[in-house]
Amino acid sequence: MPSPPLPTVRTVKDLRAVVSGWKRAGQKVALVPTMGALHEGHLSLVALARRHADHVVASVFVNPTQFGPNEDFARYPRTETRDAELLAGADCDLLFAPGVEEMYAPGFSTTVTVSGVSEPLDGAARPGHFAGVATVVSKLLIQAAPDVAVFGEKDYQQLQVIRRLVRDLDLPVEIVGAPTARAEDGLALSSRNAYLSQEERQIAPRLHQALAEAARRLREGDSIERVEATGRAALERAGFAPIDYFEVRDAETLARLEEGSSRDKRILAAAFLGKTRLIDNLGV
Amino acid sequence: MPSPPLPTVRTVKDLRAVVSGWKRAGQKVALVPTMGALHEGHLSLVALARRHADHVVASVFVNPTQFGPNEDFARYPRTETRDAELLAGADCDLLFAPGVEEMYAPGFSTTVTVSGVSEPLDGAARPGHFAGVATVVSKLLIQAAPDVAVFGEKDYQQLQVIRRLVRDLDLPVEIVGAPTARAEDGLALSSRNAYLSQEERQIAPRLHQALAEAARRLREGDSIERVEATGRAALERAGFAPIDYFEVRDAETLARLEEGSSRDKRILAAAFLGKTRLIDNLGV
Repeated sequence: MPSPPLPTVRTVKDLRAVVSGWKRAGQKVALVPTMGALHEGHLSLVALARRHADHVVASVFVNPTQFGPNEDFARYPRTETRDAELLAGADCDLLFAPGVEEMYAPGFSTTVTVSGVSEPLDGAARPGHFAGVATVVSKLLIQAAPDVAVFGEKDYQQLQVIRRLVRDLDLPVEIVGAPTARAEDGLALSSRNAYLSQEERQIAPRLHQALAEAARRLREGDSIERVEATGRAALERAGFAPIDYFEVRDAETLARLEEGSSRDKRILAAAFLGKTRLIDNLGV
Repeated sequence: MPSPPLPTVRTVKDLRAVVSGWKRAGQKVALVPTMGALHEGHLSLVALARRHADHVVASVFVNPTQFGPNEDFARYPRTETRDAELLAGADCDLLFAPGVEEMYAPGFSTTVTVSGVSEPLDGAARPGHFAGVATVVSKLLIQAAPDVAVFGEKDYQQLQVIRRLVRDLDLPVEIVGAPTARAEDGLALSSRNAYLSQEERQIAPRLHQALAEAARRLREGDSIERVEATGRAALERAGFAPIDYFEVRDAETLARLEEGSSRDKRILAAAFLGKTRLIDNLGV
């Protein structure tokens, strides 16, 4: 039997009316921000959100300010009808799907930036990306005022940027990171996988394999420098080009680490397969 | 009879405990952010806040990030005991007086910036000032979650920057601007007036007089260019040096105006008397 249609709001006013009703009744609310084009990975975020709250709100907003001028904003997949069906089936309670003009009214002038953690890796490869992310996530958290918000570890640097801004701005919300959902061959689920040709899709899991191999080597005592070089070489051999980065970093701050550091580590990689940029990461 | 001592909290946690109790009881809360060194101008903000809410919280925090490296952060007057007495006498309900480490924990990395309205005038004269203001005010509004927040028109550009960021970040608070409190001779009340020598204090009201004269000339049809030149000349003759600006601007965006524009206008000035920088402004 199909799920009943998902209640949908498109304005901050309507969103707040629903959420504040739940809160007045003493019920906990979780938010799952997305850019739509939903897949099993997103639905695992909704499932995790459910475990933390009485009501789950998913937002779908393809945020123009986090795309660079030569990136894929225009062709980013938009599948709202199907997204709403998937969310209804995943026991989501409300869809918040604002238009660009609701999020960025004429005269909009405010930017939230996070120094440090947002600067290396994707911050270096995609100038302005994390300012766009930090600003729109700040807005969504202020708009929905959830008790909990769930973000995937797939976008690990984004998760750490958001943890930092929530602490710094004193936003009264608990940030929960969700483990990366993967295909059986290890490829991290991503809306951008839809861009891959059949041949590229065969190669794509090598990204996860290179990360897993790097984590194993690090645990066995290999140096950061050698692990990074080996990882880059593996991606090159597999056919990724260019490789934006393949690096071992401090798991909290994403700063570079000295060899032998006892800090928690995260290995992060970004590389192109044809025209498609894939990212992935793994804890050590 | 002296007022009973003012309840004071120093952590966000304690602030939220008090404010959320009021809100659960259905009572409206107003916030009056200050940097302390309170005078009658601040007390007029508290009185205005009272008219909008059941409870008034005043914050006192000398925010280091809005002072430039060569400005007066170290010597800015700090008079917390007296401030608390004045607030208690003004029927304020709660003082929030956090330390720097409560507002900026180790690793703090987030900045809120507002383009456009924050760029000319004090934004040009004091690089970084409005980013410091926008960040700390965002934090205070998120921390206290007031229904209403009151800011003086004395810092007119600051007020417009705050109006803009509140709209852009969707902060659920009404911003109320309070008319500038003045001494009998017209000088805008300011904590920095305490720096003035007796002789400088005699000259200081000429700033307001120049603004009033400029407003009169504009109403009578004089051109923006002539009004600005006349205003600067009047300040120079009075002994102000240097003059940072004396300008007629769009009252909302603070953009420059073409001659004959029908937009609401504001005249804003900043100039030094000896080592003390004074600012003032007037509607037309």
